[in-house]
Amino acid sequence: MVGIFYLHKSQDICNMNIGIDMMGGDFAPLEAVKGIQLYREMGQNAMLTLFGDAELLNQLLEQHGMLQSNTTIVPTTQVIDMHEHPTKAMREKPDSSILVGFQQLATGKIDAFISAGNTGAMMVGSLFSIKAIEGVQRPTIGAYMPRENGKLGWLLDAGINSDCKPENIAQFAILGSLFAEQVLNIPNPRVGLINIGEEEGKGNILAQAAYPLLKEEPSINFIGNIEGRDIFLDKADVMVCEGFTGNVVLKLAESIHGLVQNRGIKDEFFDRFEFEQYGGVPVLGVNKPVIIGHGISHAKAFLNMVKLAQTMIEKDLLGKIKEKFKA
Amino acid sequence: MVGIFYLHKSQDICNMNIGIDMMGGDFAPLEAVKGIQLYREMGQNAMLTLFGDAELLNQLLEQHGMLQSNTTIVPTTQVIDMHEHPTKAMREKPDSSILVGFQQLATGKIDAFISAGNTGAMMVGSLFSIKAIEGVQRPTIGAYMPRENGKLGWLLDAGINSDCKPENIAQFAILGSLFAEQVLNIPNPRVGLINIGEEEGKGNILAQAAYPLLKEEPSINFIGNIEGRDIFLDKADVMVCEGFTGNVVLKLAESIHGLVQNRGIKDEFFDRFEFEQYGGVPVLGVNKPVIIGHGISHAKAFLNMVKLAQTMIEKDLLGKIKEKFKA
Repeated sequence: MVGIFYLHKSQDICNMNIGIDMMGGDFAPLEAVKGIQLYREMGQNAMLTLFGDAELLNQLLEQHGMLQSNTTIVPTTQVIDMHEHPTKAMREKPDSSILVGFQQLATGKIDAFISAGNTGAMMVGSLFSIKAIEGVQRPTIGAYMPRENGKLGWLLDAGINSDCKPENIAQFAILGSLFAEQVLNIPNPRVGLINIGEEEGKGNILAQAAYPLLKEEPSINFIGNIEGRDIFLDKADVMVCEGFTGNVVLKLAESIHGLVQNRGIKDEFFDRFEFEQYGGVPVLGVNKPVIIGHGISHAKAFLNMVKLAQTMIEKDLLGKIKEKFKA
Repeated sequence: MVGIFYLHKSQDICNMNIGIDMMGGDFAPLEAVKGIQLYREMGQNAMLTLFGDAELLNQLLEQHGMLQSNTTIVPTTQVIDMHEHPTKAMREKPDSSILVGFQQLATGKIDAFISAGNTGAMMVGSLFSIKAIEGVQRPTIGAYMPRENGKLGWLLDAGINSDCKPENIAQFAILGSLFAEQVLNIPNPRVGLINIGEEEGKGNILAQAAYPLLKEEPSINFIGNIEGRDIFLDKADVMVCEGFTGNVVLKLAESIHGLVQNRGIKDEFFDRFEFEQYGGVPVLGVNKPVIIGHGISHAKAFLNMVKLAQTMIEKDLLGKIKEKFKA
């Protein structure tokens, strides 16, 4: 997994400032600190801005020998819990690590914002503080789908948009293709429409209507319908559907690792169904890089989120998305 | 698997006449004949009516020592192929084993009809020749979902109704509950709504609207929402959703066995993801027992389909469904 985001040791990296919510996730802030340690051990030196309990963070950073330059703590006094109502919490906790993080992202003090905390609050922050890119109807979140050949597929929407119009699905395909190309390093990524039959014309009303839009979209490499059986095969690099089916598929896929472990099976491929390792997924279609991590994120997950943020900035993914939707 | 349908050696069994399309499926008619042989070897003696090429069937039955009483061949000269357009084929092949089978089912010459052939033609035959039970808006097809504790869950709709109204989903729950109770021997089966969140109010518009209907339906044991991660766990016995999500889940589940085999893993639980063994699924909500098998059905699958038909007749599942929808 450590290899999925290819980092460039560019000279510009020191100008990059990645914000991290240190209080988000079940194992915060310790695992977040360990993640930063792993990142520094890779020789990466982007500026990191850490949001959270300053005293606690200073103490942990010192313990891990991380009290160095290129790391700034922004003290915050509140934490939005995993199960709080997002909009209510955002209103009632103005000094929470998530809210302050979004303020700094909106004002350009940081270039990307990462959290393994409350997903709903991260979405609310993305949509109301950073806002959707002009032309993008519905920002989306994707999910990695492991394949036996070692590759990763990218499924979207993974649950943010449970009711969709055909146009939304076509936009997911464009956003997903840019992400796959720029971040997953897949040239000309194949886009498949998740459906219940192979031929054009199959499916529910939504899939039937989305098909021609995908077929006619010049900026993607649409290969047609794919079925449930193709999701773990290397058939399409980008797989699009509405967020209801996508979320059911994601949670089913996530459950496979536990089943395999319960059976005492140790297998390299099925190990890749441990989704926590992927670190987090970007909110695609908003104006700045925002990455949402799994609640159970450990050090490696935080490392991968920082690497993902760095890659998104280095590749100017946001610039490329904005360019595409300008037309 | 042989144990999932509990057969009663009732004295009435000889009055039961189960029709089998001997020409349907990739390995027909040989595997169908072998399936009948397995059935007879279990000491079961329901009347069997076999539709297909008489000469070929006589020859195979003789080879397998099955030319006995209680088995009648109804000669047919045409076969609907797996990939033919259902309605077109039904019109153009009046002497096909599927069409003749449905005629005999409609006129009461046989009490149930089984085929591993063209699924679309079986659905067309069910809907136009046997017809939906009065009060049932949309007949449905389910799918078995294996659980680690050896039980089976029952998911419906598995792909026949890709666009649904909330009322359809509530009816799937009633049909599925009766099937689970009568055929899978699960008393008071727990019904879960497949959704993308646990709490009431979560989900897409359809799931949000289906929830209160399920909650208020007195004849089912509704336990609330279940998520993708719960499908292979023993959380709900009957799992309902529209047929788009259901079909994606089914085909994804079917693909797991191949993945496990590719990895050289031999495991009792994952062996139960070989869906062919389950034999076939009933079309629930039509007036007579109709069972549709997998195209790749082997002898054991045919055996299980005959046993399923027998159980449905013995338990008078159709009578119970009709009673429920009479109100």
